[in-house]
Amino acid sequence: MKHEILYLSQDDVAATGLTMAEIIKAVEQGFEEMGNGRVEMPPKPGVHPGEGGDNFIHAMPAYIPAMNSAGVKWVSGYPGNPAKGLPYINGLLIFNDTETGLPKAVMDCSWITAMRTAAASALSAKYLARSESSIIGILACGVQGTTNLEAMNVLFPLKKVFAYDTLPEQTATFTDYAQNVLNLEVEIVEDPKNAVSGCDIVVTSGPILKVPHETIKAGWVDEGTFISCVDFDSYFSRDALNQADKWSTDNLTQYNHYKDDMGYFQNCPPVYAELGELVTGKKNGREAENERTFAANLGVAMEDMAVCPLIYDLAKKKNIGTWLPL
Amino acid sequence: MKHEILYLSQDDVAATGLTMAEIIKAVEQGFEEMGNGRVEMPPKPGVHPGEGGDNFIHAMPAYIPAMNSAGVKWVSGYPGNPAKGLPYINGLLIFNDTETGLPKAVMDCSWITAMRTAAASALSAKYLARSESSIIGILACGVQGTTNLEAMNVLFPLKKVFAYDTLPEQTATFTDYAQNVLNLEVEIVEDPKNAVSGCDIVVTSGPILKVPHETIKAGWVDEGTFISCVDFDSYFSRDALNQADKWSTDNLTQYNHYKDDMGYFQNCPPVYAELGELVTGKKNGREAENERTFAANLGVAMEDMAVCPLIYDLAKKKNIGTWLPL
Repeated sequence: MKHEILYLSQDDVAATGLTMAEIIKAVEQGFEEMGNGRVEMPPKPGVHPGEGGDNFIHAMPAYIPAMNSAGVKWVSGYPGNPAKGLPYINGLLIFNDTETGLPKAVMDCSWITAMRTAAASALSAKYLARSESSIIGILACGVQGTTNLEAMNVLFPLKKVFAYDTLPEQTATFTDYAQNVLNLEVEIVEDPKNAVSGCDIVVTSGPILKVPHETIKAGWVDEGTFISCVDFDSYFSRDALNQADKWSTDNLTQYNHYKDDMGYFQNCPPVYAELGELVTGKKNGREAENERTFAANLGVAMEDMAVCPLIYDLAKKKNIGTWLPL
Repeated sequence: MKHEILYLSQDDVAATGLTMAEIIKAVEQGFEEMGNGRVEMPPKPGVHPGEGGDNFIHAMPAYIPAMNSAGVKWVSGYPGNPAKGLPYINGLLIFNDTETGLPKAVMDCSWITAMRTAAASALSAKYLARSESSIIGILACGVQGTTNLEAMNVLFPLKKVFAYDTLPEQTATFTDYAQNVLNLEVEIVEDPKNAVSGCDIVVTSGPILKVPHETIKAGWVDEGTFISCVDFDSYFSRDALNQADKWSTDNLTQYNHYKDDMGYFQNCPPVYAELGELVTGKKNGREAENERTFAANLGVAMEDMAVCPLIYDLAKKKNIGTWLPL
């Protein structure tokens, strides 16, 4: 009999019903493995079609023995896509049988990317935010603003959201979700300072820029706040960043590559810890109520490979997807 | 409307009817682009599940602007698979729209890998073998032995094949193909020397080994012979290799990585030329009747990306494959 693989479209992946809580748990297990040096994750190479070098298609391979997961995510980011009515991020993930190397599944990676990125933010917050955090500021209320809110809401007793965005339509969708699905109080703010000062947790999730727009100034971030910089350091003035007591990332090798070879993260604080070090207890998380703590997670292939076996198992159990001959 | 992608199984890919002659032409165009520095091809990273480190799954991304092709091949090699009745090489190729980054197709890569590898051998032979070559020796008559014979037969007036293999069943299949499909005279030899001496072209296509078995000794290779070492340097004693007048490869960066970082190609002759340099005329091919010329091509992602647009176009034209929502 011919070997068969399972194909899952973006709708199929979402239809598996995998919850954010389950994704956070899987990503945490993955970071524990990574923190203990038990994940194989080579650098992610890519190609850059088109003019200007802003388009990318990256190969993100990883192997997590403890989770019996190996595969690659092949993900593109084209900044010009939204103007064409197409998503910025697109791609597929191939999930392999670690025993034979044969592909077991091909699945759309957009949903997984959105969810696991937010899960990593929440995981950083688990170790770096105050556990009673209830007030959150979201700057840029798109896909990542929304999924980050969802993920933080799993781990923290959130009550109130200060939402900042320059696109009213995006803010409306976000507000509807926060109020009616997550049952949170939302206040839309016109001054970005009001989505930072007075918040326990802040998520910046705008466009990633090599030259930061530095909207957030020194003095805006209160003592005791945790910030997840989903858009790298784009939102922060250097003076504001230098108020950080702890500046962390998900993977130091990749962080240094982005900093030294690609020009991001210039004049940022030194990295205090990798997320794997926090999860394994090799480095302490928050140590005082008044610390300003930051996570600048770049996203790693391990996260995708930690999540995709759960998607695969649920899809098989629920008869979701299309079986295809190899 | 949802974006759709085309899925092509291994049978679908073969059913497109793309010919070896067309594949050689596409691979030659790709090497011309590469020789002129117009291909983006980062190093191929991979993961290595299982004990011992012999298993691999590699990501092979490439972008060829002139051929409007970008994508990745995610290909595994598990030496233990044949004992389980599974192929050694398995994998999928994702072909992307260079304008939007969206995937256009996912296809099985086994057929493409087998064909394009042989096409590169024949292309090296086009520049390094004598044009009137009619006698060929094939050492190891498996998939690569067979496709290499097919590819050489496209470019050279082959008449006679000396076939050496230790597996009688494999030799029988090979012989049947060579005689009845390619109409060549086949002589099965028990002494490997008889598949080397007296031949115009020799292809070694056995298992790739870090410690070469060195079956072929100094003095076996006649003057004027071209050798394609599909299995790297595994077949050759160092003395035999040192009789090479020209030792070439497909990509020097990758060759040096295999040599310096992975332990292959120890004590081999210095590389005279990359295949792209031969195709673009930056280096001369064969310059004298009596030169012993060698190609040790390792296989590059560019070749896959040069071939897959042709497969895609033919499949669409012939209504082959399965359309799936992204």
